[in-house]
Amino acid sequence: MQKRRSVAAIITGLLLTCSNATGAMPPVSKPRARDLGVPFRGTPGPENAITDVAGVEVGHVTLISGAGKLVVGRGPVRTGVTALLPRGKESADQVFAGWYSLNGNGEMTGTTWVDESGFLEGPIMITNTHSVGVVRDAVIAWRVKHGRPEGSGYWWSLPLVAETWDGFLNDVNGFHIKPEHVFEAIDGARAGPVREGNFGGGTGMICYEFKGGIGTASRRLPAQLYHYTVGVLVQCNCGRRSQLQIAGVPVGIEIPDHPAYGDTGSIIIAVATDAPLLPHQLKRIARRASLGLARTGSVSGNGSGDMFVAFSTANPRAALPSGISHLEMLSNDDMNPLFEATVEATEEAIVNALVAAETMTGADDHKAIALPHDRLRAVLKKYNRLSR
Amino acid sequence: MQKRRSVAAIITGLLLTCSNATGAMPPVSKPRARDLGVPFRGTPGPENAITDVAGVEVGHVTLISGAGKLVVGRGPVRTGVTALLPRGKESADQVFAGWYSLNGNGEMTGTTWVDESGFLEGPIMITNTHSVGVVRDAVIAWRVKHGRPEGSGYWWSLPLVAETWDGFLNDVNGFHIKPEHVFEAIDGARAGPVREGNFGGGTGMICYEFKGGIGTASRRLPAQLYHYTVGVLVQCNCGRRSQLQIAGVPVGIEIPDHPAYGDTGSIIIAVATDAPLLPHQLKRIARRASLGLARTGSVSGNGSGDMFVAFSTANPRAALPSGISHLEMLSNDDMNPLFEATVEATEEAIVNALVAAETMTGADDHKAIALPHDRLRAVLKKYNRLSR
Amino acid sequence: MQKRRSVAAIITGLLLTCSNATGAMPPVSKPRARDLGVPFRGTPGPENAITDVAGVEVGHVTLISGAGKLVVGRGPVRTGVTALLPRGKESADQVFAGWYSLNGNGEMTGTTWVDESGFLEGPIMITNTHSVGVVRDAVIAWRVKHGRPEGSGYWWSLPLVAETWDGFLNDVNGFHIKPEHVFEAIDGARAGPVREGNFGGGTGMICYEFKGGIGTASRRLPAQLYHYTVGVLVQCNCGRRSQLQIAGVPVGIEIPDHPAYGDTGSIIIAVATDAPLLPHQLKRIARRASLGLARTGSVSGNGSGDMFVAFSTANPRAALPSGISHLEMLSNDDMNPLFEATVEATEEAIVNALVAAETMTGADDHKAIALPHDRLRAVLKKYNRLSR
Amino acid sequence: MQKRRSVAAIITGLLLTCSNATGAMPPVSKPRARDLGVPFRGTPGPENAITDVAGVEVGHVTLISGAGKLVVGRGPVRTGVTALLPRGKESADQVFAGWYSLNGNGEMTGTTWVDESGFLEGPIMITNTHSVGVVRDAVIAWRVKHGRPEGSGYWWSLPLVAETWDGFLNDVNGFHIKPEHVFEAIDGARAGPVREGNFGGGTGMICYEFKGGIGTASRRLPAQLYHYTVGVLVQCNCGRRSQLQIAGVPVGIEIPDHPAYGDTGSIIIAVATDAPLLPHQLKRIARRASLGLARTGSVSGNGSGDMFVAFSTANPRAALPSGISHLEMLSNDDMNPLFEATVEATEEAIVNALVAAETMTGADDHKAIALPHDRLRAVLKKYNRLSR
Repeated sequence: MQKRRSVAAIITGLLLTCSNATGAMPPVSKPRARDLGVPFRGTPGPENAITDVAGVEVGHVTLISGAGKLVVGRGPVRTGVTALLPRGKESADQVFAGWYSLNGNGEMTGTTWVDESGFLEGPIMITNTHSVGVVRDAVIAWRVKHGRPEGSGYWWSLPLVAETWDGFLNDVNGFHIKPEHVFEAIDGARAGPVREGNFGGGTGMICYEFKGGIGTASRRLPAQLYHYTVGVLVQCNCGRRSQLQIAGVPVGIEIPDHPAYGDTGSIIIAVATDAPLLPHQLKRIARRASLGLARTGSVSGNGSGDMFVAFSTANPRAALPSGISHLEMLSNDDMNPLFEATVEATEEAIVNALVAAETMTGADDHKAIALPHDRLRAVLKKYNRLSR
Repeated sequence: MQKRRSVAAIITGLLLTCSNATGAMPPVSKPRARDLGVPFRGTPGPENAITDVAGVEVGHVTLISGAGKLVVGRGPVRTGVTALLPRGKESADQVFAGWYSLNGNGEMTGTTWVDESGFLEGPIMITNTHSVGVVRDAVIAWRVKHGRPEGSGYWWSLPLVAETWDGFLNDVNGFHIKPEHVFEAIDGARAGPVREGNFGGGTGMICYEFKGGIGTASRRLPAQLYHYTVGVLVQCNCGRRSQLQIAGVPVGIEIPDHPAYGDTGSIIIAVATDAPLLPHQLKRIARRASLGLARTGSVSGNGSGDMFVAFSTANPRAALPSGISHLEMLSNDDMNPLFEATVEATEEAIVNALVAAETMTGADDHKAIALPHDRLRAVLKKYNRLSR
Repeated sequence: MQKRRSVAAIITGLLLTCSNATGAMPPVSKPRARDLGVPFRGTPGPENAITDVAGVEVGHVTLISGAGKLVVGRGPVRTGVTALLPRGKESADQVFAGWYSLNGNGEMTGTTWVDESGFLEGPIMITNTHSVGVVRDAVIAWRVKHGRPEGSGYWWSLPLVAETWDGFLNDVNGFHIKPEHVFEAIDGARAGPVREGNFGGGTGMICYEFKGGIGTASRRLPAQLYHYTVGVLVQCNCGRRSQLQIAGVPVGIEIPDHPAYGDTGSIIIAVATDAPLLPHQLKRIARRASLGLARTGSVSGNGSGDMFVAFSTANPRAALPSGISHLEMLSNDDMNPLFEATVEATEEAIVNALVAAETMTGADDHKAIALPHDRLRAVLKKYNRLSR
Repeated sequence: MQKRRSVAAIITGLLLTCSNATGAMPPVSKPRARDLGVPFRGTPGPENAITDVAGVEVGHVTLISGAGKLVVGRGPVRTGVTALLPRGKESADQVFAGWYSLNGNGEMTGTTWVDESGFLEGPIMITNTHSVGVVRDAVIAWRVKHGRPEGSGYWWSLPLVAETWDGFLNDVNGFHIKPEHVFEAIDGARAGPVREGNFGGGTGMICYEFKGGIGTASRRLPAQLYHYTVGVLVQCNCGRRSQLQIAGVPVGIEIPDHPAYGDTGSIIIAVATDAPLLPHQLKRIARRASLGLARTGSVSGNGSGDMFVAFSTANPRAALPSGISHLEMLSNDDMNPLFEATVEATEEAIVNALVAAETMTGADDHKAIALPHDRLRAVLKKYNRLSR
């Protein structure tokens, strides 16, 4: 762990970024929540990641530099940006989407057009609270630069950018995210494994007063539900220690040590599926992310920006410039397995974020400790919930 | 006019209802707003009525009896119920729908399921404020009686019933609407011409302090928009006299005589179309009804229950008990003509209600005068807006 | 019908558990969830009931008659109606309120006016799905009968009535709830202990495929939060057995026996507080009920009408007919303890409903078994979660 | 980029109409809609501007440079940013607010927190579509720079920034708005007269295919409504020519010449009042802006971002960091005059924008002509609607 950090420091000393390649490939040896014996229901996809939904790509840019006393504009820097591309970066085809705000102490731009049109037109970007603006305009600039999908200036003019606050560890008022980081996150997005923990937008995040960040998980439905996949990605920055439950076990009460700070943070949750759901059905899916979050103990505190977005990669070419498109829609009565998958994958993605995140020291030497894996196992065992 | 009233009194003395046949057929001679020279934009369908949307049926039951002093439970009765069947009474196939509340001082049951499912499962019923409950349960009873669409008790368990308040003319606390009136309104629903003014749910209504009630209008789109039809039906009970505008002309200020009463009433607006719109697009249509209402001068007062519902008869068999249905969706970019049609037909339906309604005397000898046709023409002429 | 009505009257006189006295007083010996050793956080009020919020009254009317084969209109009857009066039946003073629909497959009338005005004007009524209408109109009739608060016919014209479906045990298509039952539930409402389980609207309900029904709980906040109380009442009819979690323990998987039926039901949750919250803050409270429900395992299935309402008894005389009222508002930043209290009390109220409900046999000899107390304790013990 | 930036700085120094002083003071001679004889109802405040609401300040920064062929990043530039400060720039006290999206094809950041908290924490900024991000982050930077209201980094982290699209006249993809323009707009905000037409965010806007931009108006209520003021400011960029109605007269049909371009644009409407309204009441006010817009003919086209925000300057110190604040609330039943004032002032502000805007030639020599004052008067006269 120590070694990786110093390597990261070297990289960030040079470029201030982790490459997107490293953003996409987790080290083989790093355990995830299931590996530690946390019991979950349901069957995950091959990567147990949002990228199990075909076409979805994720890219991180991670900025880590400096240490010690905070000087606004100089650091320390512990932040980043994550790009989630519903159909990959080569496609400009829109996806049906829906969103939901459980507690709106946060920003998610672009949502009124999602509500109105039913479509998400570009990537989902996640960053820190004070960089939403630069990321938003840079998404437009990326599109202008690539001259697509057409020259009207219309599409992608209302980007979806979400945030959680990393000012405990990061010089958030220093505005360290720049347009080039946004371009890099989009250009570097990949299918396959997704880096979890201190990467991308999740770099400086705190979750239940442990180190938090990015987490992901997925569920694959059985044949009678067409093998649909549901994938979840979270940027987890919420909750107080005493609230934390894992697999129903009061882990936060059992491991009260070194709480990071006393606010209630935020969480952004993105849900992807290949099931053919219409916009109003995707809003239902987004709302279920609340229930997965609740299982980890959060009460969605006043200071928390708990905002969720769901999209479906089914129905390609639904968004036509004119005329009639032909669609498929799954019956409402068949949605229960998708609801369960969403709740389960959300819960697991949050725990994965906690398991993957590593202890970090940042601004003013503030420190957020990682959830200790051995103690987690001991607590699960105490409550007879260790699965392996 | 006097004569018809006395006939109505005889009929209601016997049965307390107008037959649905009469509910469906307006007398040939009765002029509508266009006939009086009110200018409107757009091209109406053959009936200039919501029934121009194929499949839509309307049925009224009208209760008129008694006169003089109000005795709660004994009358005078000036009320009714209107049934609007999206696919006619023989079909149990659901329609996509969306709704909107401009000012929620009213009741429209069943809307949370419309929002959640995207479907409207049964008829739209409109009645007086204090009879919403009996009508709602009776819609379920009607379905139970007919044993359809299947025996589960599930469908049509959440009927959509809306209301406006007729207590100025009617013994609203007497609860005169009974389940059999509901059955009769549904069973008697018909395609073709729709009776306007003092019929059905509109019987005792006041509109801009003139006599109000039911009004309808439609628009037919040109070939490049597939000849789609938009039809509107209103139960108009809103507005103060001084606010009334017709074709942009301040008619209410010009005809200040005999205002009925000083509250701001309510209006229910139903919009039907055969354009293939999804639920979130129908919510957009419903919201446009506000703009048509605004053109007649209303500011949607605090006391007004201004609630609108829109549905599409396209996409038959969209609601499957399980599996995947195949749908069509009109491009968002093609919706503007539908928005215009909705605004225009809403405006015209309200004016049609005013033109059709006849002077009525009701509870405690309260009186609401009809909009005088000759004076309307004179005012339009004064402002150079008379079309014929 | 006349005959059936008189038979019903006789049955009511002989057999029905209708008395409000019994509705209000639970037997001393009946254990609640805490008594069985289920661990909960937080400190309940003296009754651990919604009536711990001063002024709140609850009344049940319970209809139980007949047995064996279902004959529509004749029974068996296993239903009822529950009245929840925010300021008691003697007051016509309105309360600030907010509501939320987690999954809108249900009915809660009156909510558009709650949204629009910020006020709840009368009682909260809970009954079965097919009796919402009769209960709604009867609430108006009750008010007309009592001639208050004034003669305008305006207030209480938009009653709030919610429902869950009891057709597994009850002749729901028989429409057995009559206006007199509604009057009785309101007139009989009382402060103090609240009957849980098979009472009032909860009579025929199923919860996680055990017998469900009414449950309640409360939380009292510490002095630095002014000793505010949060009380919750649920009519619980939701969830599948395998989903049930109690105190984080997978109770449903451990006790799979005799599941009642495979649908996903509904739950109505009412939250009361004496904290001075504005309407938009109460909507936040209502939304937290989702998180308490989630802790018991529900994913809020497609068939579930999961609708929640929250009100505050603070700010008496906020609703003036004109002019300016003087209010108090708790800081948003102080709401977290109220959020926690809501989540905790919701969770406990649901478990209380399960613990209190008793095995019932109803229509067509359908049977719903009570959650076996001894096995619940054994399961909690297995997972080291038994508190006593 | 470095070069371009310095060129921009030079241009700004030489040519740009940036001074806030000019932003605040309209030339004496410029007529407004009333001066031309357009009839409106109601009594305006002394400036007939949003600044008639005490405390409200407005600042514009206007960027106009270059001509001829569009080169992305080089111009021509026809854009700007407008700052609307509810309590002036010296106060960090929050205001109650509510918002509404009539057609969400636009961006208004910060709205989820307005919905959730009931408060608007900082200024309302209006700019072009592709500069929302830079403006948003710059609002945070302005606050950081001024070190207030306290050091937590929390307040003003979720700025409200809205936009309409000026790409017909402006190099919108050139991202010409810089943080310093935002600082200047805020720092230069003033009470008193407000520049209308081609200023601030309104610089490059098109309205009903005439030149559009900023417009404002106000209404003062009579003594029995406590002399409350309602002020409206619009950034008007919406509508097609044929739709335009002024005072109910079909002006757009009468003056069809030189339509600017065929899309349906957007409109941002801000409503200020000193009436003591709670957040849910302000949402009602925001919704009424739709009705004022409708009176000018718009049907709120698919491409239009029609988003409205309302705030109240009453209830100072409502937002406490903890504890209980003491508030006033106007009765719902007294809101009708405020609804009328909102509708009327919105209508007048839009017409004022049209009257004040001047013919502009911009990118690729695109041209938008001003509404010709003489022809407007002639059309009003034709329809007997000229007031002077």
